[in-house]
Amino acid sequence: MMTVTVIGTGLIGGSMALDLKERGFADVVLGVDNNMLHADMAIQLNLVDEMVTLEEGAARADLIIIATPINVTRQLLPGILDDLKPGQVVSDMGSTKSSVAEVVNGHANRPQFVLSHPMAGTEYSGPTAAKKELFDGKAAIICDADDSDVFAVDLIRRMYETLGMHVMYMNANNHDHSAAYVSHISHITSFALALTVLEKERDEKTIVNLASGGFDSTVRLAKSSPDMWTPIFDENSVNLLEVIDTYIEKMQAFRQCIADSNLAEIYSLIREANKIQKILK
Amino acid sequence: MMTVTVIGTGLIGGSMALDLKERGFADVVLGVDNNMLHADMAIQLNLVDEMVTLEEGAARADLIIIATPINVTRQLLPGILDDLKPGQVVSDMGSTKSSVAEVVNGHANRPQFVLSHPMAGTEYSGPTAAKKELFDGKAAIICDADDSDVFAVDLIRRMYETLGMHVMYMNANNHDHSAAYVSHISHITSFALALTVLEKERDEKTIVNLASGGFDSTVRLAKSSPDMWTPIFDENSVNLLEVIDTYIEKMQAFRQCIADSNLAEIYSLIREANKIQKILK
Repeated sequence: MMTVTVIGTGLIGGSMALDLKERGFADVVLGVDNNMLHADMAIQLNLVDEMVTLEEGAARADLIIIATPINVTRQLLPGILDDLKPGQVVSDMGSTKSSVAEVVNGHANRPQFVLSHPMAGTEYSGPTAAKKELFDGKAAIICDADDSDVFAVDLIRRMYETLGMHVMYMNANNHDHSAAYVSHISHITSFALALTVLEKERDEKTIVNLASGGFDSTVRLAKSSPDMWTPIFDENSVNLLEVIDTYIEKMQAFRQCIADSNLAEIYSLIREANKIQKILK
Repeated sequence: MMTVTVIGTGLIGGSMALDLKERGFADVVLGVDNNMLHADMAIQLNLVDEMVTLEEGAARADLIIIATPINVTRQLLPGILDDLKPGQVVSDMGSTKSSVAEVVNGHANRPQFVLSHPMAGTEYSGPTAAKKELFDGKAAIICDADDSDVFAVDLIRRMYETLGMHVMYMNANNHDHSAAYVSHISHITSFALALTVLEKERDEKTIVNLASGGFDSTVRLAKSSPDMWTPIFDENSVNLLEVIDTYIEKMQAFRQCIADSNLAEIYSLIREANKIQKILK
């Protein structure tokens, strides 16, 4: 009899709840959400069996999944570890890992906690964004596995495998560096693109009509939630500033050769960028 | 009996040839391509009925579609107009319009030419990228319609309607300005993102595994052809430099508030960017 408590019944927590229950990993799924509207929706949408308080959810769980914005995760985590009983396991779903690890380093119950990150999502958020099969075929990262008990890591690995994910192991610093390059910067480039177009192209009909020229896919992530992304950008700021600086350099390189009408250099930059297609089929 | 000659049997020309033939707009489709490999592929893939020389294709056509990179379009267009017979119509498919209009301004046969731009495509190029139904539901822009004969504009409008497109009319300068904001910059942001990641994240396996975090959609356009995009960036450079500068300002704004750990400002920029979702559902 496995009881899973999901704290934060939004896109990630809600989607996990659905698949973990349906695939038999969890017998009971309890939900915790401090947003009353979201709590109601989670019940109406059948994401969880029952909504409970944080205290009750933590007490009754075999496994506690924290799927809140990471600033909230950092606030909740020490208290949750304080009250853990032997055998209970906790994992967080945050997009940055070092800052989460920091708040529980050296905690007596740290071994029952597993730092992890399922690399899946959409640009939507909240309980209505939750859906089945969100995670299948994607990567899940378990970080700093040596700081967790073997039974805890094993449970989280089995959970991700139940979700159809392939599990990778990385240390938290390497994770945050790679996530800055491969996930976080994509959101910033989309936000910046949206801001640019919203400022300068005020004719909404023109935007809609011309958007088929590639704009829609590059700007899709600009719909992403500020509640989720603000703390990610802040807590991964060191890595992110490095990426942004490199990115601005590349943008300046394009600017320069376009300003100079240097066709050979424009061509060469595009050719170089094309190499991404060997990596992403 | 309508004969359409498509010059450039790649993604756009090849896809048009397929649908115009199948939907009965064209009785015969002739192809012209100076790339012998592409010419062979266009025949093997049944994109066109026959590959012919530029001279033969132009002489036999009721309608000539120029679907080459725009620098090539600019080279070919004056000679094609020189040799036009009464009643023949020419249109080009280029992504920038002012620089194309420039080379035939004042030409005696300018009225038989229609400046146009079907806003559709993928990140792939060449005859193998051609496919049916590429254009359905997308916008086609006809520019500077007053500089063309009514019968010529009418033929091109009917052609685009056959392809399932909704036709808009704009002047060439406005088109180029909007295209810079809504299409061209998206390609540059993707190229710059690809260059950034290729430079700093050398572990290809990590890129592949983490790419589900939004990277794949924002970088998709970085696969686009340098032959097509180099002349677009050059010929639309005035508009594009304006967009790039605005874009870099927005990126710098993100950089600044992340560096300052100014959470309120990060949140507010994201909130502002989110407004794009009211425009793009």
